[in-house]
Amino acid sequence: MKDDYSVGAYSVEGEVDYQDLITKFGIRPIDEELKARIKKDANDIHFMIRRGIYFAHRDMPWLLDQYEKGNKFYVYTGIAPSGGMTIAHLIPFVMSQWLQEKFDAEVYIQIPDEEKYLAKRDTNLTLEKAHELAYADALNIVALGFKPGKTKIFTNTEYAGVLYKQAVRVSKYITFSIIKDAFGFGNDSNIGTIFYTSMQAVPAFLKSVEQGKNVPCLIPLGVDQDVHFRVARNAIDKLGYYKPAIMHSKFMPSLKGGPKMSSSDPDNTIYLDDAPDVVEKKVNKAITGQQSTAELQKKLGGNPDKCAVCQYNRYLFEPDDKKLAEIFEGERKGTLLAGEHKKDLAQKINHFLQEHRKKKEKLETKLKDFMITG
Amino acid sequence: MKDDYSVGAYSVEGEVDYQDLITKFGIRPIDEELKARIKKDANDIHFMIRRGIYFAHRDMPWLLDQYEKGNKFYVYTGIAPSGGMTIAHLIPFVMSQWLQEKFDAEVYIQIPDEEKYLAKRDTNLTLEKAHELAYADALNIVALGFKPGKTKIFTNTEYAGVLYKQAVRVSKYITFSIIKDAFGFGNDSNIGTIFYTSMQAVPAFLKSVEQGKNVPCLIPLGVDQDVHFRVARNAIDKLGYYKPAIMHSKFMPSLKGGPKMSSSDPDNTIYLDDAPDVVEKKVNKAITGQQSTAELQKKLGGNPDKCAVCQYNRYLFEPDDKKLAEIFEGERKGTLLAGEHKKDLAQKINHFLQEHRKKKEKLETKLKDFMITG
Repeated sequence: MKDDYSVGAYSVEGEVDYQDLITKFGIRPIDEELKARIKKDANDIHFMIRRGIYFAHRDMPWLLDQYEKGNKFYVYTGIAPSGGMTIAHLIPFVMSQWLQEKFDAEVYIQIPDEEKYLAKRDTNLTLEKAHELAYADALNIVALGFKPGKTKIFTNTEYAGVLYKQAVRVSKYITFSIIKDAFGFGNDSNIGTIFYTSMQAVPAFLKSVEQGKNVPCLIPLGVDQDVHFRVARNAIDKLGYYKPAIMHSKFMPSLKGGPKMSSSDPDNTIYLDDAPDVVEKKVNKAITGQQSTAELQKKLGGNPDKCAVCQYNRYLFEPDDKKLAEIFEGERKGTLLAGEHKKDLAQKINHFLQEHRKKKEKLETKLKDFMITG
Repeated sequence: MKDDYSVGAYSVEGEVDYQDLITKFGIRPIDEELKARIKKDANDIHFMIRRGIYFAHRDMPWLLDQYEKGNKFYVYTGIAPSGGMTIAHLIPFVMSQWLQEKFDAEVYIQIPDEEKYLAKRDTNLTLEKAHELAYADALNIVALGFKPGKTKIFTNTEYAGVLYKQAVRVSKYITFSIIKDAFGFGNDSNIGTIFYTSMQAVPAFLKSVEQGKNVPCLIPLGVDQDVHFRVARNAIDKLGYYKPAIMHSKFMPSLKGGPKMSSSDPDNTIYLDDAPDVVEKKVNKAITGQQSTAELQKKLGGNPDKCAVCQYNRYLFEPDDKKLAEIFEGERKGTLLAGEHKKDLAQKINHFLQEHRKKKEKLETKLKDFMITG
């Protein structure tokens, strides 16, 4: 079972065993004790942490020690543009925005517009196109409520005047051997993709460089991205900076129930710019944990863990635990029919997207206040 | 014999067989016909070309075709700072300045302040130190007479805001296989040094990017640097730009007669900031092609090819062919004694260095007119 899945930076396959992944990656579960401590320090707890969507971490107790001593941390996250932004892409940004609010944290957001250009062998994604997408992503990100003046967003090609020098410092401590093992690269990998992880490492210590003293950093990320920091944390340590703390999230499933929603499978993915009827159509085709007929469903009940509709509520669209419990219960007992169930989710998604678009419109002219170009 | 030497980007060993190198590298000799054509187009011929110090090329006839059709070329060269600048480092810059003057060419000068930091495993050369050295090198370079407004000098860490994006485009077409074969890198090479050649490639087509149309480029370089462009020319071609033309120079020998003057052997190297007495002392210890006593020398005569003193005159310090012939003849016939011979060279070097220092003093405040930082 445990070898039936794989989680790499550039592909995720099979049904992920998160418990096993914790051992494999050498990370730690976010347990009840840690949740309680986050709740105490934040005076709140985000439902994604409460529900175990953020399920693992590195060095969070150390980070909170620092915070409790008055040594505030900053938050670093990012997104590599390749197609449009999907709702699954929201997970690290929703968390980062919450951390900004609750811990008064500055947020650094890297948009590596070169990453997918380099990583995808056969693609018509030009650097120019990736750069355009980066700005579209940035607008989607700021619309989640980030504070101007406390949020810095940058694309790698534009901010290389700052990033490259620091990436060079990191890269000196990373050999091709390490990269080969970590990313599965080989002789036929291009040298840009081999170097790239150094660029992703930089924002994890950039604030320390800027301040001339060590500043703790917290990175919320999808667990597939952990590998970049397994590699970089040693290099960052050798350069004399704090290793970043990390919070790892699980993958939002595809609408058809795959391991990870992916922008390379558009039919089973909801994009932030999908029109209401497109959302309805896609959600209607989503997999549920329900039985094949209404009659069987009423008799046998369903399985919320296998149900994309339940999971989308759990990951993003039903922050209220009581209401979520009702949905799960309805699914389990078969009192909630697939049709109603999907209609409800489609409405929630469309409501969110509509509000999101309004926020984007208002922020369009203010995006430049968030972007730094070097 | 032919396997007794090696010429790599990061080390040169043994007595170089330049004839053999032409075959190995797939380059072409600069023959009398090409010299005549350069002389016609430039209305002059530089002694380094006349004397075969620039001994090989790529695509020079094509470049001159373009020039004769009115399609002017620009010149690109560079220096990787590691210690102070030596007189051997002058060779590509003296040539570039001459090309600027004779062909009204713009000159791009890259100072890759990250290269030696990345390439040297055990070194106390920090990036900061390399960056300082880069500016010292830049001042030495402009003092050779480059024109402001037609000369752009940049360090890689400062100009990465422009260079990195283009390096990414190049790097997509260069695999680790290619780099392994070209540079002898392996699993223990760091990923910065693996990527680096992409950065060195950029100025060879940067003007075409800036102009939005293809502009021919000529690179004068030491033949050990050819490997970067053996790799990059294919990638540059795939991106749709002209492959750069190249002129290859031989290595200025070490004072003790080694294959290449090297800043890692300071006793046998003359630095641009060596004091007059230091120059005298170093030149006094130089190897000559002469016999061990004045008596034997008078009897048997010497070999100018093995004589560092003769060669320094030939490479840099005696532009007059007649005078050079006299020096060689004196060495051969034994009429010129080692003591006089060395005294004469030390005087020429010190005269050059003194004038050079005066020019540097005058240009110190004007250096910023040459530097572009992004």
